Amino acid sequence: MAAPSQVVDIRDKLSRIDEVWSPKILAEANGWHVKLVKGRGQFTWHRHPDVDEIFCVLSGSLTISTRPGGDVVLGPGSVYVVPRGVEHRPDAGDGCEMVLLEPEGVPNTGDAGGPRTAVDQWV
Amino acid sequence: MAAPSQVVDIRDKLSRIDEVWSPKILAEANGWHVKLVKGRGQFTWHRHPDVDEIFCVLSGSLTISTRPGGDVVLGPGSVYVVPRGVEHRPDAGDGCEMVLLEPEGVPNTGDAGGPRTAVDQWV
Repeated sequence: MAAPSQVVDIRDKLSRIDEVWSPKILAEANGWHVKLVKGRGQFTWHRHPDVDEIFCVLSGSLTISTRPGGDVVLGPGSVYVVPRGVEHRPDAGDGCEMVLLEPEGVPNTGDAGGPRTAVDQWV
Repeated sequence: MAAPSQVVDIRDKLSRIDEVWSPKILAEANGWHVKLVKGRGQFTWHRHPDVDEIFCVLSGSLTISTRPGGDVVLGPGSVYVVPRGVEHRPDAGDGCEMVLLEPEGVPNTGDAGGPRTAVDQWV
C-alpha cells in the first residue's frame, strides 16, 4: 500500500530522529521504503545478499568501504549504489544524514545481524 | 542490474539537463529508477495504473493536483507519494527541480500518452 497521501518534510522528519544507525521510514511505494538515517562513526560490516541499496547523503560526509573494492566518499547530494551481495561498511565520521532506498523489510545489518540490528519504524 | 558503482553528484547531473519534463535516470537498483526532472509550467493530466510514484522536490515549488482530491504544494525537501491509479498533474510554476522514484520503464505521461511522452535516458 502506498504511504498516506500527505506531504512530508525531510528536515522536519530528521529533527525527530535521535538514534544513530537506526533507519526510519519516510515513505512507502511499490513495496519499497524511503528511509532517513542519522549516522555517526562506523557501522557494521555487512551485506544484503538479494538487494541493491541506494545511499544519498543530505549532510555531512559518508565513507562507504567495500570488500573487495575500496572506499568511496559521499558528500551532500552524492548518490551511490551498493550492489547486492557486496560487503560494505558505512562510516559517518563526525555525523551524517542520509536517505536509503531499498525494498521493505531489509535489515540494516544485512546478513551480519547482531545487537545493532534495528527494527524499522516510521518517523 | 545495479548501476555502476560510482558516486554521482545530483547538482552535477542537474547541470547537464536542459529539457523540461523529460526525466533522466540517475541511478538504478532492484528494478527501480531514481530520476531527475526539471519542470516548468504545467505538465499533462495522467495516471499510472500500476505504480505509485514518489516525488521529492530539490528546488523551487511543485503543485500536484489530483482528481478526485485537490492540490498539494511541495517545496525543497518535500516528499509526496501519488498512489497508483490516481490522476494527477504536476505544475512546476516558474521552475522546479525534483527527484522521481519509480519502477523502470514507467512513461512520464502514464496512460495519457501524447507528444510530451519522453524516452528515459541516463544523465
